[in-house]
Amino acid sequence: MLDKAVIEVCMGLSHPTMTVCDLGCSSGENTLFFVSKVIETICCHRRKIGASTNIELQVFLNDLPGNDFNHVFLSLERFKESIAVGHERETLPPFYIAGLPSSYYKRLLPDKSVHFFHSSYALHWCSQLHEGLERNQNEGNIYIAENTPPYVVKLYQEQFQKDFLLFVKLRCNELVFGGQMLLIFVGRKYEDAYSGGLNHLFGLLAQSIQFLVNEGLVEKEKLDSFNMPNYGPSVDEVKTVIKQSEMFRINKIELLEHNWDPYDYSKSDYVDDPIQSGINVAKCLRAVTEPLLGSHFGKCVLDALFDKYAHNVAKYLEREKAKHSIIVLSLKKG
Amino acid sequence: MLDKAVIEVCMGLSHPTMTVCDLGCSSGENTLFFVSKVIETICCHRRKIGASTNIELQVFLNDLPGNDFNHVFLSLERFKESIAVGHERETLPPFYIAGLPSSYYKRLLPDKSVHFFHSSYALHWCSQLHEGLERNQNEGNIYIAENTPPYVVKLYQEQFQKDFLLFVKLRCNELVFGGQMLLIFVGRKYEDAYSGGLNHLFGLLAQSIQFLVNEGLVEKEKLDSFNMPNYGPSVDEVKTVIKQSEMFRINKIELLEHNWDPYDYSKSDYVDDPIQSGINVAKCLRAVTEPLLGSHFGKCVLDALFDKYAHNVAKYLEREKAKHSIIVLSLKKG
Repeated sequence: MLDKAVIEVCMGLSHPTMTVCDLGCSSGENTLFFVSKVIETICCHRRKIGASTNIELQVFLNDLPGNDFNHVFLSLERFKESIAVGHERETLPPFYIAGLPSSYYKRLLPDKSVHFFHSSYALHWCSQLHEGLERNQNEGNIYIAENTPPYVVKLYQEQFQKDFLLFVKLRCNELVFGGQMLLIFVGRKYEDAYSGGLNHLFGLLAQSIQFLVNEGLVEKEKLDSFNMPNYGPSVDEVKTVIKQSEMFRINKIELLEHNWDPYDYSKSDYVDDPIQSGINVAKCLRAVTEPLLGSHFGKCVLDALFDKYAHNVAKYLEREKAKHSIIVLSLKKG
Repeated sequence: MLDKAVIEVCMGLSHPTMTVCDLGCSSGENTLFFVSKVIETICCHRRKIGASTNIELQVFLNDLPGNDFNHVFLSLERFKESIAVGHERETLPPFYIAGLPSSYYKRLLPDKSVHFFHSSYALHWCSQLHEGLERNQNEGNIYIAENTPPYVVKLYQEQFQKDFLLFVKLRCNELVFGGQMLLIFVGRKYEDAYSGGLNHLFGLLAQSIQFLVNEGLVEKEKLDSFNMPNYGPSVDEVKTVIKQSEMFRINKIELLEHNWDPYDYSKSDYVDDPIQSGINVAKCLRAVTEPLLGSHFGKCVLDALFDKYAHNVAKYLEREKAKHSIIVLSLKKG
């Protein structure tokens, strides 16, 4: 889907600079993967149509100002070398990489200046927690759980709708006519907001925090006042917002299911090594939630928390091979 | 001169986004000063002509990938607030700030995509040291000194010409027709390359390193193999390169003289407090040369080096009020 979008955008270019932006780029080993894919696609497209087009690529890597951009910037030289090595026999499109430090719930770039937005595993983060959620109304839970009151579910849904609509409107302003977006984020398979992999993942995390409360390591008030600023919408919820915005045409919307353990590629119905999978899941969740959990519960409890969490996940996976849902959404402006 | 360039560029805009780039932005308290000046100028221009133009500003902050961009990015929120406070009664032009990590002796941005380049106190840094200079041919010195052989002076001059011509060509590719550059860098008042404030500043630094050699703290070989990758050209040398490039029209070129001590604003012929001024000069020079000197001579000698240097500068300033020359160069493409 990335290939298709990049080629379509390429072909529609009236001037030779293609501007792309990766939203929520992070600073890990996958940060520059998107850039390499775009370059690869342009090269491949040029080989196919035999054209010696002089496309230049302007890339913006976006994340919050607290992201470790220094780390990303220091890796660019090596990245450029590795790209060059992979394309020794052809001229690469010149590409220029900039860092764009800002929340994507704000305007990032000038009007009609971007051809393609991409975002991978970022958009399920809300811009903030709904005010109502801060008032201990989801006792013992940190996300939508079985005993979460329906009005709390509604607060989550409203926050998602508000955020996603804002996001869509902002990006629409920034895109050229015909510009595209490819958005990949955690979603939900069924309409029922009480269902889904995210609910179970965070349910087990809440249990692990409850364990620390019982052990006297965390105050109960700390658990009760915490809710994840995440929401996994259903495909219909996403479609509704896109329709409401009246700005984009949906090229494609897909729901994929992934095993909780990202290293478990098997399609079987059971988990081979629940203990190892528990550890893997805990590591992944820790990587993305550590700053948030650390600042609320204190960094010193995180080791104990994620040890317990790995254990809880392993026990869960012994019973059932859990999956979470990913929404892949391709949009075109106009 | 900044005001004039920004206004001219503004008036020539065929579309409402003005792209500006600050080359060698660094990460200190002055880093965002350029951005605030550009915003201020646009606001002031709008007030004067009474227009409600919808200019948007795309700003690129450029420096080497090792620059502390994280620090700059974390200060942006506060910067935006302070700009808003200063313009409560008017609508600010929307501005979007990105970091651009690369040497400016390489291409930074797409063809014809920039309206205005700015660079303050950066361009006297060479892209590298001329190969010949690495072969101990300027014994006991670290820049052009009285006993520097003329062929070493020529190596410095050739490096400057090569670098500056490359810089001018690269930026010309990136500028729109009619785009401008404002470049401020250390230069030299007289044609004689053996003269000038930079020669004395680095001469005193070489003496300070020699002192550490005598004390057994630094090996003589270390001193002999070190040369500053800096060059302060004369106005004529600069003009020659611009003419050779055949790409830019010189709007204005000026030579200003500044006291060595940046906190000494007096125009008198003597230095009031040579000891304090020595300390101030040493601090400034340390701030800009520390990474370079630290990696060559070892970080552990820097305190001793700059103590001695402050002392040497003070002694020098007792005899004469030294100045260094700054070249202010305004260029227009086409």
